[in-house]
Amino acid sequence: MGPTLTVTFTTTDGGKTAVKIEPGTSFLDAARSADIDVTATCGARGKCRGCRIKVLKGAVPPPTIMDEVQLGPDEVHEGFRLACQTRAIADTEIMLAPPMTEGGHQILGAGDGVGDHAGIDMNSGVEKKFVTAVIPMDEHVQSSDIEEILNAIGADDAGRILPELLQKLPAILRAEKGKVTVTTFNGTILDIEAGDTTAHKYGMAFDIGTTSIVGSLVDLETGEQLAAVGDVNPQSVYGGDLMSRLAFAQFDLGALRKLRARAVQSVSDQIKEACETANISASHIYKVVVVGNTAMHHIFLGIDPTYVGLAPYSPTVRHAIELPARDLLLKVIPNAQVCLLPIVAGFVGADAMGAILATRIFESEETRALVDIGTNGEVIMGNKNKLMACSAPAGPALEGAQIKHGMRGAIGAIEKVRIEDDVICETIGGAPAIGICGSGLIDAAAALLKANVILPSGRFRPKDDKSLPKALADRLSGSGGKSEFTLVRADLSGNGEDVTLTQDDIRQLQLAKGAIYSGVLMLQRIMEVPNDDLAELQLAGGFGNYINIESAVTIHLLPALGLDKITYVGNAALMGAQIALLSEAERARASVLANEIEHVSLAARLDFQDIFIEAMCFPDDETVKKLAGSVA
Amino acid sequence: MGPTLTVTFTTTDGGKTAVKIEPGTSFLDAARSADIDVTATCGARGKCRGCRIKVLKGAVPPPTIMDEVQLGPDEVHEGFRLACQTRAIADTEIMLAPPMTEGGHQILGAGDGVGDHAGIDMNSGVEKKFVTAVIPMDEHVQSSDIEEILNAIGADDAGRILPELLQKLPAILRAEKGKVTVTTFNGTILDIEAGDTTAHKYGMAFDIGTTSIVGSLVDLETGEQLAAVGDVNPQSVYGGDLMSRLAFAQFDLGALRKLRARAVQSVSDQIKEACETANISASHIYKVVVVGNTAMHHIFLGIDPTYVGLAPYSPTVRHAIELPARDLLLKVIPNAQVCLLPIVAGFVGADAMGAILATRIFESEETRALVDIGTNGEVIMGNKNKLMACSAPAGPALEGAQIKHGMRGAIGAIEKVRIEDDVICETIGGAPAIGICGSGLIDAAAALLKANVILPSGRFRPKDDKSLPKALADRLSGSGGKSEFTLVRADLSGNGEDVTLTQDDIRQLQLAKGAIYSGVLMLQRIMEVPNDDLAELQLAGGFGNYINIESAVTIHLLPALGLDKITYVGNAALMGAQIALLSEAERARASVLANEIEHVSLAARLDFQDIFIEAMCFPDDETVKKLAGSVA
Repeated sequence: MGPTLTVTFTTTDGGKTAVKIEPGTSFLDAARSADIDVTATCGARGKCRGCRIKVLKGAVPPPTIMDEVQLGPDEVHEGFRLACQTRAIADTEIMLAPPMTEGGHQILGAGDGVGDHAGIDMNSGVEKKFVTAVIPMDEHVQSSDIEEILNAIGADDAGRILPELLQKLPAILRAEKGKVTVTTFNGTILDIEAGDTTAHKYGMAFDIGTTSIVGSLVDLETGEQLAAVGDVNPQSVYGGDLMSRLAFAQFDLGALRKLRARAVQSVSDQIKEACETANISASHIYKVVVVGNTAMHHIFLGIDPTYVGLAPYSPTVRHAIELPARDLLLKVIPNAQVCLLPIVAGFVGADAMGAILATRIFESEETRALVDIGTNGEVIMGNKNKLMACSAPAGPALEGAQIKHGMRGAIGAIEKVRIEDDVICETIGGAPAIGICGSGLIDAAAALLKANVILPSGRFRPKDDKSLPKALADRLSGSGGKSEFTLVRADLSGNGEDVTLTQDDIRQLQLAKGAIYSGVLMLQRIMEVPNDDLAELQLAGGFGNYINIESAVTIHLLPALGLDKITYVGNAALMGAQIALLSEAERARASVLANEIEHVSLAARLDFQDIFIEAMCFPDDETVKKLAGSVA
Repeated sequence: MGPTLTVTFTTTDGGKTAVKIEPGTSFLDAARSADIDVTATCGARGKCRGCRIKVLKGAVPPPTIMDEVQLGPDEVHEGFRLACQTRAIADTEIMLAPPMTEGGHQILGAGDGVGDHAGIDMNSGVEKKFVTAVIPMDEHVQSSDIEEILNAIGADDAGRILPELLQKLPAILRAEKGKVTVTTFNGTILDIEAGDTTAHKYGMAFDIGTTSIVGSLVDLETGEQLAAVGDVNPQSVYGGDLMSRLAFAQFDLGALRKLRARAVQSVSDQIKEACETANISASHIYKVVVVGNTAMHHIFLGIDPTYVGLAPYSPTVRHAIELPARDLLLKVIPNAQVCLLPIVAGFVGADAMGAILATRIFESEETRALVDIGTNGEVIMGNKNKLMACSAPAGPALEGAQIKHGMRGAIGAIEKVRIEDDVICETIGGAPAIGICGSGLIDAAAALLKANVILPSGRFRPKDDKSLPKALADRLSGSGGKSEFTLVRADLSGNGEDVTLTQDDIRQLQLAKGAIYSGVLMLQRIMEVPNDDLAELQLAGGFGNYINIESAVTIHLLPALGLDKITYVGNAALMGAQIALLSEAERARASVLANEIEHVSLAARLDFQDIFIEAMCFPDDETVKKLAGSVA
């Protein structure tokens, strides 16, 4: 074939260099072939941000998990990528080492540390003391090695003495004439090392999601994030979405063990990676805070999740859990404390608890909402006086499942749709369309609604409806429940087939968005908060990054608030885990909040049917116009 | 050969049956060959007392470990044996199923349970509750499985929630419609089982000795002992006595692992055996109390014992230790609590602490002494107001080591020596003498002292000393440091060689007995307790069972108290472990006592040399005569 694509590199000082490459070449290799020096500190493994680029012109390739981990969702959204991870698919103009917007958003994504967070008491509970302990030399003194350690650190009482610590203590105590570093967590000794290791005090935060597991290595003294890591959740081979994963494990402890082992292995691998990236020893990681949805939380602990997946979706435990790393076989010191945040109720899990900590909704004077859109959506609403939460089973339609031409967000997926005279679709990577992903589905529905092709009930207008412009009427086929709207015709698609939206696809979207929206509506009703009184709606979670907020409002996936009131807050769950990692006061707060937050069980509410039917419908013409106006 | 021995069985009603057997036949097989019905409930494995016999006439075969475990030291001393374990070595008359003396001694041996002990608050800390927990059925209720369990048992706060409990909880809670048995230890939940298992609540006590490991399975509700088990300490292959065992492990963590694994395996095996004997499930053992000397204690926990064996013999930990069985890989439920009693100081270890609990010396109005004679002797002295303790490194001479013809207590070992006109030796099993064991050595020295063959300094009189009777003078050979006294001449011995006592043997005995006695003397001096004020001296430990107390007093191994003041108390260490097993108050008391007892380091005392020299010497003629009178 030979080089067929042109990549133009722009440096921050404005210089430009063009290079011809073959499709599929990574931008890092492209730069190197042009003798352009690109920093790749981690060895092109996607473990640092050194080789970051920003796509200025041309198709933006879909982000890899490492892009998301290293750069954070906002930057990824703006076209930032890692040159080592991203392959050219079209003529592209890119900027080398673009400046990152530091601290540009109040809530930080997976790629950033907690930094200095206002109002958070920074005390991780982990303390290291370098002391000189007396080595028992006098037979008259009635003492022991551990008592001399306790004396040296001024411990009033022994607390729990962990036998592992004692095993090598005699040698450690005498290795440097009694000079030792003693590490405690809330008073319990975790480790004793010879010499002075006080400079090394680290922790990790993890969010174990159904789709991906992401982590963050943090210096517990400074709060600085030293490494960000992530990977797809390797449990996915046993079921891509939450409910199929649960179905796999139900009534089968062997299956549970397989799922658990994969999650634990992934976390252990990420600990290893993070330590290599930051060039620290895993033996200096003393605290690990883990969040995750209720199912992932239970599976990670090896708890039979059978009943988490069956009504009334009751968890086996809601309490905050602390256990030594040894019990999980994590690759850190045996006594490192692994802390899981508490669960509020049902599917409002430890990840939601993390998001609550991160967004500080419990400190808010005004009433706010926090929405995590996913297979299972969670809604938290309230202010410093009162918080309520519910979960809404949206199903996997928003991930492209159960949609005729649905697909995940990959190259060739329609991600944006608008209607001017005719339908205009944009695909990921600019490639010919082969299907539609969740954000495209929302966009398409919004566009068809605004163009009056879809009625508020969700039904397609008949093909022969005179009010339809010819271009759109031509795209309709079938009738009634068999109606189908062609988004991209076969001759323009990537696989020689029409990419269509069926009446059934619209119904699936209605069920999904109706579930989420009814959660928001229900809490608004119970708490008596009309849209005008809702100061802000924060979107958390991975999916929130990709949807067009205007479209989401147009189809009533989200309530009709002004666009300025709806913000995307990135991986707030991991952020909350980092906060709990750095602050025992905040970790304790999570337990208090978990008890205080009132959980509303949607299905058990008498008025749920009414609200759900309302939430499933699209707004009427007038409202759509009004919305289009208000959110413009 | 054909049958050459006659065994005569006497039943308790006086009937007699004689049977001819070959030497080496077990008494059980002998009885069966005569169609005599003998109960052997455990299948002739030495695991019950059904086949017990008592030797009425003829040589008493040496006891096996199973004899000691099942019958206890007192009965073994009186000629009780297990027919399945004991082999005929001579013409013998035995009684079948002799009545056991129940509760005949205040302190019980390994073979008996703690029973009702006056003044002991019987509360093991283990509680089982059969309750019906609510199965979460209502989505409105914000709860979880474990919260319903906590509600059902009326727990105020969650305490530590152990993740293992949660893993199968969903299934257990629902197996019998919420009917579960919840087991707690001091408020922490150890296990949750479906249905009602409250009838099964067991614990085990272990004494891990240098030579043997013995255990006792106890019903925690009734205090009844359900099984007694024991075995030689399988670490012995790596060193028979304490110091060689320590030398093996010193500065070698691999060696330590080997030692630890053997002790843990032995304890696990014994748990299994005890459960089989009592026909209970190991999953119903919730508490295990372990005692042992400081070295065994450290090795069992995997603590590097290097410095336990080096001056100043400082332990790594003295605190009482509690850890879940899982951490030791013991074959009980993972959360069963393993509790080690505290250490006082140096070699005054958890076994001494057990003996202290068992003998109730801390409650005594009068001043008493507790002496454990072994490679390392421990002495505890005092009363309810004040207790002091010391340890005395006697070395292995009393076990027959470093003695020219020394041997362990086995068939052919001289165990008793007296001098009338000439020397009269009795051997174990009545076999021709092949050596001398510790108790024989003490007996021989006492007899030679009384016969004036040995001077108070420990030197043999010269062979030509006119005061010596000819029969004794004829047995002396050599002179000065090379003097040697023949106990059994070659033509009468079992191996065709003289069995002698050398001057050096006497010196070794003096060093060993001097160490023990100086411990007693030192505490008497410091506490200002003359012999007359010492109300009782209790001998604990295995060796105490075999020595002739009169001889021990005669040679000043023990102070010159009336024989009625010196009592043998059996395996008091194990007894103490059983007390701590059945009573948390007593286990807590052990920690208080361990801090209160004042440890005296003999070697560090300025007056130790004086006392040791005094203690090494034998008493002078006049004293010997007086002693012989007082103890007669």
